[in-house]
Amino acid sequence: MNIAFIGLGNMGAPMARNLLKAGHSLNLFDLNQTVLAELAALGGTISASPRDAAQGAALVITMLPAAAHVRSVWLGEDGVLAGIAAGTPAVDCSTIDPQTARDVAAAAARQGVAMADAPVSGGTGGAAAGTLTFMVGATPELFATLQPVLGQMGRNIVHCGEVGTGQIAKICNNLLLGISMVGVSEAMALGDALGIDTQVLASIINSSTGRCWSSDTYNPWPGVIETAPAARGYTGGFGADLMLKDLGLATEAARQARQPVILGAVAQQLYQAMSQRGEGGKDFSAIVNSYRKSQQDL
Amino acid sequence: MNIAFIGLGNMGAPMARNLLKAGHSLNLFDLNQTVLAELAALGGTISASPRDAAQGAALVITMLPAAAHVRSVWLGEDGVLAGIAAGTPAVDCSTIDPQTARDVAAAAARQGVAMADAPVSGGTGGAAAGTLTFMVGATPELFATLQPVLGQMGRNIVHCGEVGTGQIAKICNNLLLGISMVGVSEAMALGDALGIDTQVLASIINSSTGRCWSSDTYNPWPGVIETAPAARGYTGGFGADLMLKDLGLATEAARQARQPVILGAVAQQLYQAMSQRGEGGKDFSAIVNSYRKSQQDL
Amino acid sequence: MNIAFIGLGNMGAPMARNLLKAGHSLNLFDLNQTVLAELAALGGTISASPRDAAQGAALVITMLPAAAHVRSVWLGEDGVLAGIAAGTPAVDCSTIDPQTARDVAAAAARQGVAMADAPVSGGTGGAAAGTLTFMVGATPELFATLQPVLGQMGRNIVHCGEVGTGQIAKICNNLLLGISMVGVSEAMALGDALGIDTQVLASIINSSTGRCWSSDTYNPWPGVIETAPAARGYTGGFGADLMLKDLGLATEAARQARQPVILGAVAQQLYQAMSQRGEGGKDFSAIVNSYRKSQQDL
Amino acid sequence: MNIAFIGLGNMGAPMARNLLKAGHSLNLFDLNQTVLAELAALGGTISASPRDAAQGAALVITMLPAAAHVRSVWLGEDGVLAGIAAGTPAVDCSTIDPQTARDVAAAAARQGVAMADAPVSGGTGGAAAGTLTFMVGATPELFATLQPVLGQMGRNIVHCGEVGTGQIAKICNNLLLGISMVGVSEAMALGDALGIDTQVLASIINSSTGRCWSSDTYNPWPGVIETAPAARGYTGGFGADLMLKDLGLATEAARQARQPVILGAVAQQLYQAMSQRGEGGKDFSAIVNSYRKSQQDL
Repeated sequence: MNIAFIGLGNMGAPMARNLLKAGHSLNLFDLNQTVLAELAALGGTISASPRDAAQGAALVITMLPAAAHVRSVWLGEDGVLAGIAAGTPAVDCSTIDPQTARDVAAAAARQGVAMADAPVSGGTGGAAAGTLTFMVGATPELFATLQPVLGQMGRNIVHCGEVGTGQIAKICNNLLLGISMVGVSEAMALGDALGIDTQVLASIINSSTGRCWSSDTYNPWPGVIETAPAARGYTGGFGADLMLKDLGLATEAARQARQPVILGAVAQQLYQAMSQRGEGGKDFSAIVNSYRKSQQDL
Repeated sequence: MNIAFIGLGNMGAPMARNLLKAGHSLNLFDLNQTVLAELAALGGTISASPRDAAQGAALVITMLPAAAHVRSVWLGEDGVLAGIAAGTPAVDCSTIDPQTARDVAAAAARQGVAMADAPVSGGTGGAAAGTLTFMVGATPELFATLQPVLGQMGRNIVHCGEVGTGQIAKICNNLLLGISMVGVSEAMALGDALGIDTQVLASIINSSTGRCWSSDTYNPWPGVIETAPAARGYTGGFGADLMLKDLGLATEAARQARQPVILGAVAQQLYQAMSQRGEGGKDFSAIVNSYRKSQQDL
Repeated sequence: MNIAFIGLGNMGAPMARNLLKAGHSLNLFDLNQTVLAELAALGGTISASPRDAAQGAALVITMLPAAAHVRSVWLGEDGVLAGIAAGTPAVDCSTIDPQTARDVAAAAARQGVAMADAPVSGGTGGAAAGTLTFMVGATPELFATLQPVLGQMGRNIVHCGEVGTGQIAKICNNLLLGISMVGVSEAMALGDALGIDTQVLASIINSSTGRCWSSDTYNPWPGVIETAPAARGYTGGFGADLMLKDLGLATEAARQARQPVILGAVAQQLYQAMSQRGEGGKDFSAIVNSYRKSQQDL
Repeated sequence: MNIAFIGLGNMGAPMARNLLKAGHSLNLFDLNQTVLAELAALGGTISASPRDAAQGAALVITMLPAAAHVRSVWLGEDGVLAGIAAGTPAVDCSTIDPQTARDVAAAAARQGVAMADAPVSGGTGGAAAGTLTFMVGATPELFATLQPVLGQMGRNIVHCGEVGTGQIAKICNNLLLGISMVGVSEAMALGDALGIDTQVLASIINSSTGRCWSSDTYNPWPGVIETAPAARGYTGGFGADLMLKDLGLATEAARQARQPVILGAVAQQLYQAMSQRGEGGKDFSAIVNSYRKSQQDL
């Protein structure tokens, strides 16, 4: 299939690579010439603009950093909607606010283009390995069309409802994740301060009602989970600044809906303090260090 | 075995019943004459005081509402320590602060009595069914002695470390539980307000990084989990006032240790507001109603 | 002086009226034809667009609801910058984020227009009475130029620094105000619950270290301050939804600066819960009702 | 007058000194022999116990660190109530929880002793200078009796209501104070991060609706108020650990009353984090440093 792929950053580039491997021909666009050259060497075709990439494509995929980029890549003068043919399926995989996802899809619909939002989880590792989860907001027909292609970049392709619900699913999950990680950090640090062995505490929590992914799979306390970022100095996971971005999307969407998210807002501020201290590049589980008297002891 | 069992409330009475069924002879004490008569009819012997109950017992078990009761039942003039023989194993199953557990155990140790703390989880249902979890703080020797008897009242008998660590494990787990439930409530209510189907949202969370017991087993949103209190009007589970008690123990222990527990403190206040509104008797998952515009719609 | 005045809502209309009274001739623009007709009857001239209003004006003033309006009124095809002459002083009195204020001023500067931001406090009452406070971000020269005209609409004209600092001053003050009001509410409600007379408590606070405008001038407890909204059913003051707007600006500016504002974020969520309950139109001091067991008692 | 004065710490000793200067004869008790010798050298009489001090005294005053000390000094075997004559007025100036104040006063009443609670504000400086504020919970008759003597140790003697209300007034005021100081810290740090001059910001706040004692008298930002602890490295004011004690009393009293205090609970945790970092001895306004990217820059 001839696919337009726009946005070739840390996530987009490995995703495009998997589509090339699967035998698709790609029209590529990005501002970064180096990555364009790399992917062209693997068989892709370099386009002059999103408009140019979209022309003649049987499917358009975008993967961009934030809502402003999505608006300009889709709605701009040289944007996708200026080049795409009516009837072409389209999907944006960026993580952005649900309202922008709906606005851009509505603009696409006005010229006969069915568009989905499909933010991912799984990180750069999942993008490279082709094991991402896609949370897809689309009509049932569009979902059926997209599923095989998304399945060449990911493992779980989940239909969340109509357009925008992919973003909603992602920000609600990550709101809870951000809170849970702080909760586990408080529980582990309190237990340590009170004198229980943290390995024992984690094993009790993990077989009890406190059980959660942030404790049993990604425990922030060093020494509890060997494969977690806590075991390697909080490197190489999901950066606190990315969590901060997602919590920002969640609290902003909540603000627009007049929906209170009290713990979510506090958690956001705690990651913000971490970022202010210059630790936004560490894995988000390093938030546990805000609660530890002496990190040096470990 | 001749066991002194003191404290026959909603938890203690069914626990004592299971020990009678297992063939032990019990010296019983409580202020409630009705429950004493009931258990005497099942073969127990009524004692005049904790001291009286402890005299001649081969094991002493207490199950009391709060730290003040534990202090008076053990350390009072007619208390357990006034009657117990040196060398007798002893265990308090109340949920109290770790410091009181340690203080009382230290007093017991001064007269040659090894004492454990062993708070439980599993509620009145688990107490009746003999499926409680015991979180035990004790020396390895005492734990080995207690394990078979506790096993007649519960299913998981977990050794947490030295005396006091049973309480620590319980309050740390419940601190996290109290936070997680609020987190799930915020995520579900936000998703609903933004327009995703709550069943779909829960299923995404439950197979993703937001996964936790509060979502996959006890989801607060009506209609998600058929066996959860949310499906039956928030009745019959773990009351918000009990969660409030445990969060009070956690934040008070944290205060004494100068250990911040920010989300825990906020969660405590949210359950406190629920209790102030007269809803402390509902299951703690009813906290979700603080986040819903119109509970009436369901 | 010939002044362009754009944005004639609840604040803008009485401000324009005061300028007409002071003898200025006004080029008026708004989407609301009724208010345009009213002000034309007082001597103003109706313009066809912001561009039209700005042409030939010796000063341009705008007073708009939010940043999006400011951008379109100034930067749009028919916007102020399309009509204004180089060298004309300009001021935007809207309450918006500091970054937009700076961006629009930078665009103005590129065509030789010195622009100030000058958000106000004092509400519709102050606008009508000409007693507003203007917090002005401008060069010293521009401030000197604007001061006499602003002084015809307000009483305190404060120079905060360069462009953008007017907005910063306003959102920082209102961040603190939003927090203080919740703080006073918690202190008064706690005192009442514990059994002290609330009049006595307020008088102690007001002569002690808890003293603040939210307590001594605008106390949220009914019966304490006769002139406060609490004495008239929380009507006619500064609406909770306006406070919510300002806290939204503050936390969003903080997010962009990676600056934590923990209590500010919690306060925002509490007003958001109030707004969700349908009480966003009440004075913001009605937040005290979130803390009272039975509002009915008063 | 022959006065028993028990508790001669940092506050009690200078208070007792002022009573000696005013010509009273004092029966003194403390565990610290050094301070007893010092005050004996000024004319006081050393007693063997609180009971001994109370015998023959025309008034009993106590000034103790915490509720446990108040209980033992008044209710213990050698306590005040074992020695005091019926009809003798009595006052405890400690800062403790209202319930203990009421309990001890009830015990006193049972043997014909009218007792007041009268916690102070003003710190060790005020104690030495005789300028303390006393917040007095007492019957009108007892208040009238105590007022002249308290007036020899302080400047403002405020009648708050019946016994216990002195404590309530103090903890409610300090709850608000603790919140306000965090609020001012957030507002000043946000303003600084966004680029306004902090002197200008403080002056705007201080003449606007954000005005409060924590900003206009005790501003935490260095350089704003010359007499504030911020101007001298956060030394010599009201220590963060003392604020932490008072917030602990407030949230504990709120817990017992099922009264939510959300911002109060968060503020407590923030001071707790400060204390955990080893900065509990600094003035409480040093909480601002939790919000500053680089304290070193000043």
